[in-house]
Amino acid sequence: METLPQALLSDRGLAYGQGLFETIRVQHGRAPLAADHRQRMLRGAQQLGLPLTPAQFDQALAQGLARAGDALSVIKLVLTAGSGGRGYASPAHPRVSLSAAVFPYSPRPELQYQQGMAIGVCKTRLADAGALAGLKHLARLEQVLAADEVRAHGWDEGLVLDARQRPLELTSMNLFARFGDRLWTPALDRAGVNGVMRQRILASGLSGTGVELCRRPRVLADLRHADEIFACNAVAGVLPVRKLALWHWPVGDLARRLQSTVENWFLSP
Amino acid sequence: METLPQALLSDRGLAYGQGLFETIRVQHGRAPLAADHRQRMLRGAQQLGLPLTPAQFDQALAQGLARAGDALSVIKLVLTAGSGGRGYASPAHPRVSLSAAVFPYSPRPELQYQQGMAIGVCKTRLADAGALAGLKHLARLEQVLAADEVRAHGWDEGLVLDARQRPLELTSMNLFARFGDRLWTPALDRAGVNGVMRQRILASGLSGTGVELCRRPRVLADLRHADEIFACNAVAGVLPVRKLALWHWPVGDLARRLQSTVENWFLSP
Repeated sequence: METLPQALLSDRGLAYGQGLFETIRVQHGRAPLAADHRQRMLRGAQQLGLPLTPAQFDQALAQGLARAGDALSVIKLVLTAGSGGRGYASPAHPRVSLSAAVFPYSPRPELQYQQGMAIGVCKTRLADAGALAGLKHLARLEQVLAADEVRAHGWDEGLVLDARQRPLELTSMNLFARFGDRLWTPALDRAGVNGVMRQRILASGLSGTGVELCRRPRVLADLRHADEIFACNAVAGVLPVRKLALWHWPVGDLARRLQSTVENWFLSP
Repeated sequence: METLPQALLSDRGLAYGQGLFETIRVQHGRAPLAADHRQRMLRGAQQLGLPLTPAQFDQALAQGLARAGDALSVIKLVLTAGSGGRGYASPAHPRVSLSAAVFPYSPRPELQYQQGMAIGVCKTRLADAGALAGLKHLARLEQVLAADEVRAHGWDEGLVLDARQRPLELTSMNLFARFGDRLWTPALDRAGVNGVMRQRILASGLSGTGVELCRRPRVLADLRHADEIFACNAVAGVLPVRKLALWHWPVGDLARRLQSTVENWFLSP
C-alpha cells in the first residue's frame, strides 16, 4: 500500500482539485501549440486567483522540452494552489506549485483516424459548473467516471451529455458536427472543457473550407442528421466519429482536411 | 516556485481528484467517531471502485493516532486511486494509496458556539453530482470557491444552494432547521457531502429530544420561519446559526442539547 509524502497531503491540488493542467504534444523537440496551452493556463490561473506568471510557465515548459528531447511525447504541466489556507478557504496569498512531467506518446490506433471511432452515450453527465465551466482544472471525477464507462463498454470514446441531456463533448475530446456547410460545436459556457485544439480549429482551421460556424443549441437527435461528425484534442488531433449506437456517419471531407491541417501544424519546421 | 515530485504527478488523486478523504477529530488520544469515518470511507471506496480494506483503514488511523498522541488534533486520511490507467480511464486493477496526516486542531471561536454563526448565501452552487452525490471525494473545487466567498464577505460560514436554488448545506458543514417539533435536514441524494456528524445525529443524537425528522424539500424562504437553525461537522461539532442576511434566529434548545451530546461523545472515556 503506497503512502504519499506528508508535504504532498497539504497540497491543495491533491486535497481539493484546486489547480489546472495542460497536456502538450511534443514532436521533433517542438510544441507547436505551446502558445495556445500557455494562454489557456494563464487565463485559467487568473480566473482561479492563482498567481502564475508567463515566465514561470515558460520555465516549466522548457524543462519539459529538455526532458522530452526528440521523442514523440506529451508534456503534462500541473499547476496547483500550493498549501495553506484554512480548510476549503484558499490562503490569502497563494504560493502556487508548477510541475512538468514527460510521458511517451502512444497514439490511438491508425484505424480510428482512417475509419473513425465507434462511440456510445455515457450515463455520466457533466453538471453545470458555474465559474468553473470550460477550465481544465484538476477536479475531473466526472471525466473519470465517463471514461470508465467507455472502457467497460469497449467503445473508442464516449459522448457526454450536459444537465439538459444535450451533447457537450466526448470524455477527452471536443465535438464537431457538419450539417451541409454549417459546422456546429456545442457551447461550453456552462460545462465541459474548452480544448486548445477546438480553439485552434475555430480560430484558424476553417479558413478556405467553405463552412460557416453555427452555434445554436442542438439536441442529441439532431446529430443523426449530420453529414459528418468528428472530435479533437491537442494530443490526438482530429478523429472522425463513424458510429454512435445505431447511427452511422461517413468519414467526411472536412475531417480529412482538418487532419491534414493539424498534421502540418505538427510537422512544419 | 515549488515543484511537485514526478512520482506524485502520476497520482490520480492529484491529477483528477480520484479519491476520498476523512477528517477525524482526536481528543485524549481517542477518535470517538472513528467507526463512522471508517464506514463512510469504505462505502465510498466501494462506490468508486477503489479496493480499500478495513485493515488498511485501521492501520492508517493507528498511524495517525500514534502521531497525534494526547494533543487535540485532526487526523486527515487521504485515499487515492494511485497511478496508472490511460488518461482519464482508471487502471484495470487500481492500487490505492492511503495516507495519514495530523494537524493541530484550532477550534472555532467560542462565541460562535455560544451565540451562533452569522452566515450569507454563496453565489457558488453545488451542481447535481450523479453517482458522486454525498461522497467526500477529493474534487472539491465548488467548496473552495464557496469558502473563498465566505472569507471575502467576512461571514462565519456560507449557505450553499443546489441547482434548484434550494438550501443544501454550508461550505464545510451540514444544515438542520427545526420547525416546532419537526427537524428538517436537506436530502443529499443529488449533491453535497453526507457528513459523519449529520449521520450520527440522525442515527442516535435525537433520542429523547421529542423532535421527529421531516425530509420534505424546502426552499430558502422556508428557513425564515424556522424556530432554530444549526450546522454541524465531525470536527467542529454543532454550531447554531443566528443570522442570514436580514433573518435572525435564536440559539435554540435542540442545538444546545446536541452540543452537549457531542461533547459527551468526545469526552467520555
